[in-house]
Amino acid sequence: MSDGSTPSKSRRDFLRKGAVAAIAMPAITTLAACTETKAAPAAAAQAPAAPPPPEPTPSQKADAMDAMHEKGVKAFPAKTEGKGNQLLEPRLEGGLKVYELTAEEIEWEVESGRRVKAWAYNRQVPGPQIRVREGDRVRIVLVNKLSQSTSIHFHGLELPNSMDGVPFITQPPVKPGESYTYEFTVPNAGSHMYHSHHNAAVQVGNGLLGAFIVEPRRPRPAHRADVDYVMVLNDGAHGYTLNGKGFPATEPIVCKQGQTVRIRFMNEGMMIHPMHLHGMHMTVIAKDGWDQPAPWKCDTLNVAPGERWDVLVKATNPGTWAFHCHILPHAESEHGMFGMVTALVVQKAGVA
Amino acid sequence: MSDGSTPSKSRRDFLRKGAVAAIAMPAITTLAACTETKAAPAAAAQAPAAPPPPEPTPSQKADAMDAMHEKGVKAFPAKTEGKGNQLLEPRLEGGLKVYELTAEEIEWEVESGRRVKAWAYNRQVPGPQIRVREGDRVRIVLVNKLSQSTSIHFHGLELPNSMDGVPFITQPPVKPGESYTYEFTVPNAGSHMYHSHHNAAVQVGNGLLGAFIVEPRRPRPAHRADVDYVMVLNDGAHGYTLNGKGFPATEPIVCKQGQTVRIRFMNEGMMIHPMHLHGMHMTVIAKDGWDQPAPWKCDTLNVAPGERWDVLVKATNPGTWAFHCHILPHAESEHGMFGMVTALVVQKAGVA
Amino acid sequence: MSDGSTPSKSRRDFLRKGAVAAIAMPAITTLAACTETKAAPAAAAQAPAAPPPPEPTPSQKADAMDAMHEKGVKAFPAKTEGKGNQLLEPRLEGGLKVYELTAEEIEWEVESGRRVKAWAYNRQVPGPQIRVREGDRVRIVLVNKLSQSTSIHFHGLELPNSMDGVPFITQPPVKPGESYTYEFTVPNAGSHMYHSHHNAAVQVGNGLLGAFIVEPRRPRPAHRADVDYVMVLNDGAHGYTLNGKGFPATEPIVCKQGQTVRIRFMNEGMMIHPMHLHGMHMTVIAKDGWDQPAPWKCDTLNVAPGERWDVLVKATNPGTWAFHCHILPHAESEHGMFGMVTALVVQKAGVA
Repeated sequence: MSDGSTPSKSRRDFLRKGAVAAIAMPAITTLAACTETKAAPAAAAQAPAAPPPPEPTPSQKADAMDAMHEKGVKAFPAKTEGKGNQLLEPRLEGGLKVYELTAEEIEWEVESGRRVKAWAYNRQVPGPQIRVREGDRVRIVLVNKLSQSTSIHFHGLELPNSMDGVPFITQPPVKPGESYTYEFTVPNAGSHMYHSHHNAAVQVGNGLLGAFIVEPRRPRPAHRADVDYVMVLNDGAHGYTLNGKGFPATEPIVCKQGQTVRIRFMNEGMMIHPMHLHGMHMTVIAKDGWDQPAPWKCDTLNVAPGERWDVLVKATNPGTWAFHCHILPHAESEHGMFGMVTALVVQKAGVA
Repeated sequence: MSDGSTPSKSRRDFLRKGAVAAIAMPAITTLAACTETKAAPAAAAQAPAAPPPPEPTPSQKADAMDAMHEKGVKAFPAKTEGKGNQLLEPRLEGGLKVYELTAEEIEWEVESGRRVKAWAYNRQVPGPQIRVREGDRVRIVLVNKLSQSTSIHFHGLELPNSMDGVPFITQPPVKPGESYTYEFTVPNAGSHMYHSHHNAAVQVGNGLLGAFIVEPRRPRPAHRADVDYVMVLNDGAHGYTLNGKGFPATEPIVCKQGQTVRIRFMNEGMMIHPMHLHGMHMTVIAKDGWDQPAPWKCDTLNVAPGERWDVLVKATNPGTWAFHCHILPHAESEHGMFGMVTALVVQKAGVA
Repeated sequence: MSDGSTPSKSRRDFLRKGAVAAIAMPAITTLAACTETKAAPAAAAQAPAAPPPPEPTPSQKADAMDAMHEKGVKAFPAKTEGKGNQLLEPRLEGGLKVYELTAEEIEWEVESGRRVKAWAYNRQVPGPQIRVREGDRVRIVLVNKLSQSTSIHFHGLELPNSMDGVPFITQPPVKPGESYTYEFTVPNAGSHMYHSHHNAAVQVGNGLLGAFIVEPRRPRPAHRADVDYVMVLNDGAHGYTLNGKGFPATEPIVCKQGQTVRIRFMNEGMMIHPMHLHGMHMTVIAKDGWDQPAPWKCDTLNVAPGERWDVLVKATNPGTWAFHCHILPHAESEHGMFGMVTALVVQKAGVA
């Protein structure tokens, strides 16, 4: 098995990356499928008046495009400020687990250097992960520091009606500056969510959402996993994101060869996202927190808005595996991979 | 469990609702996720020249938005003219059940005061519900009062080819002013549909569609239900609708605690609609009229165009439960819930 | 059973088809749901200055529309240059099956007379079909004659990481003018795909994709089929296509009454396509190449990007059956059926 390609390293080194990128950009951005454009490097604007640079050759254009692609991959996982979906430890009051969720407007770094306005719980997008057990008694205090009223719906939990979080149907809206308390015994197990249910197309789209995991009192041995990973999909005001970040600022899922990884997909967006894992199949075990009657296998799982799907991956195949939405414009542009892309990293047994 | 919110009633009462709505509107409608705007109140346009009103405070804006949301919920179920999906009684000719479907252009009130042009069967959107039994002999007479040719395809029924309703493949188009007769023995049971199959993107989008339910000769005891509800989803020329109406003019599904409700989802639109029920799960029993090999549970069911899904809901949880498409811009705007929203009302046992 | 329609043949014959089409077009193309317009007949542009023709009557308009619809159906299957998805015979080197895939820009005739730029493997869209058996040793030589770098990902195959085809993660990009060799032992059976994984939203959208079928070493008797048909769905740069062609240039699936047809749906596009078969149901047996735990039936199968679904159709019902995407604007416009439409032709037993 041989690889005939010998990339012309010297040619690529010769070209100053910034200049080539600036030249190549106009040609590239005219292509129709390019759904995300980034600002042209400032260097181009600052260039002194001078004869126009020669038109890049096709080979130079290809190299410039590849360099952009490489840059993205090499930056992965790129550092950004803020991390969503962090496990929230409750304050214990006797047998009661108390969680406080403060909704407020923040600045959120989706990718390195791309900061957006977000409406967040506890300054995280997604909001902090709540993980409890069937039968737990919990209290959730919502503090509203937004300029709009809000509420929380516990999506998937079969609660008493008064805890359902729908303004004017089950409760009054929680006004700016006010707070509201939900309290209940945790019902059905599974991968659930919490999010605003007031002006929700805007409020959820801006980030008011999080995972609410209910562990069963009697876990099924067949569902035992070494790694338990929540992946919240979104496509709202912050672009295409996994757990609030776009590639290359997304988080890889790391495990050791032979381990079992459970992934809990949750779609908080407005579009379907068929998530495709390279190199290994996924075994689907639950839908919306309910066990499927029989597990079934796939490599591309279509996750629709509001749905949760739990899968197990037996990590038999070592390597770094692309893992992305297969609506390709959600995952790659002329400038390289972006948005709903991460990797499953399966470390070889006996390797650090 | 306490609710800290004490809405400032007097402040809300002080504000004249119309004026505040008019003031608040410009700020609100600039938000990106607002997919449906309504005309600003006429009052604003009629206001005499005068100094501009003071900019509303954030609190006033929040109250104005909440008032719009409340108004929608309080109006539910709002009265409108016309009701689609009404059971059509056949005329009996010996053992033959005869149905007449007249296609014509009508005016259809989607929500209170929002009247649109529709192409309808028997002046209903969706067209009248046809409900027969496996093995019945039926005749369906299509009368075309439209300005275009048309035809009917019985979507899901395994009919002889000549009854399939596709112009130039299985029959000639039915010209304006003409009629056409379909006659067949009802084959496979299940939740099916009928709709135009000529210039169908336009004709179905405008309303030429209906439910065609075939009851099995030997019903399965496990599928027995107290309430049998057909819910036709649409997103064509009339906006986002359930059975031809947008919230708050949609129809609640009402049952008593302990009863079983069967819901037959049918998508006659162009987009997926993941329907989310609050408070209780749905048990999926059939797809396109065919029993699933094993029932499975969910709270959010993704229904794609042309699909039918049958679910059972065991109504254990009393209360009024939101029931909506979870593509949030199909269900809520800055002005409140609209479109694909209804409620499952579970009446407490022993309560009227 | 009678057909009351008596189309006014003489009236239609009286009207010169071209002129009526030209007159009717402006009215027709204003309708919102018309998603595909074709150039008005050249005749209109060449008409000498003259008094404007009289406005066509509604009946003339209906006839003109029907004539366009009829023309499309009567042309089916329309001849076009080029055929995608042709079985590629390997060159044998000992026990090794060697395939060469050359990526280059070509002109591709999507429908009669509609030629587009395409990026193709071996001058076909979809690329040639590779069909091997579990455990085969294969070598695939990618020759890049494009102006961009590229790569091949074998979507669904559980290969060693170095064969996964993702530039900068598992291999360098294959530069213009260069070639790259993949070689592996064929792993998991099923309906898989191969496509570019570099600048993929553009490259796959332009045609760099194909079917990779892996036959199991021990085929399941229950999955035996008389006809084995691959149907690649796409919605990229070439419009809505089945195997690279739009109706009426799509290919009918032909079988004899009583035979079993296996259809392998593969979505290489960016949108869902719920494929609806008239007249008979489909029994779903596999997802992404993996057997479903139990077969299940439907008539409308929602296929999301990256997914493959295998179904069996027992061809019991003779006739020509429409088979199309049920997102109607992907299948029909005011000008007739187009795009993602084909037919399953079930020939009566004992008929040629």
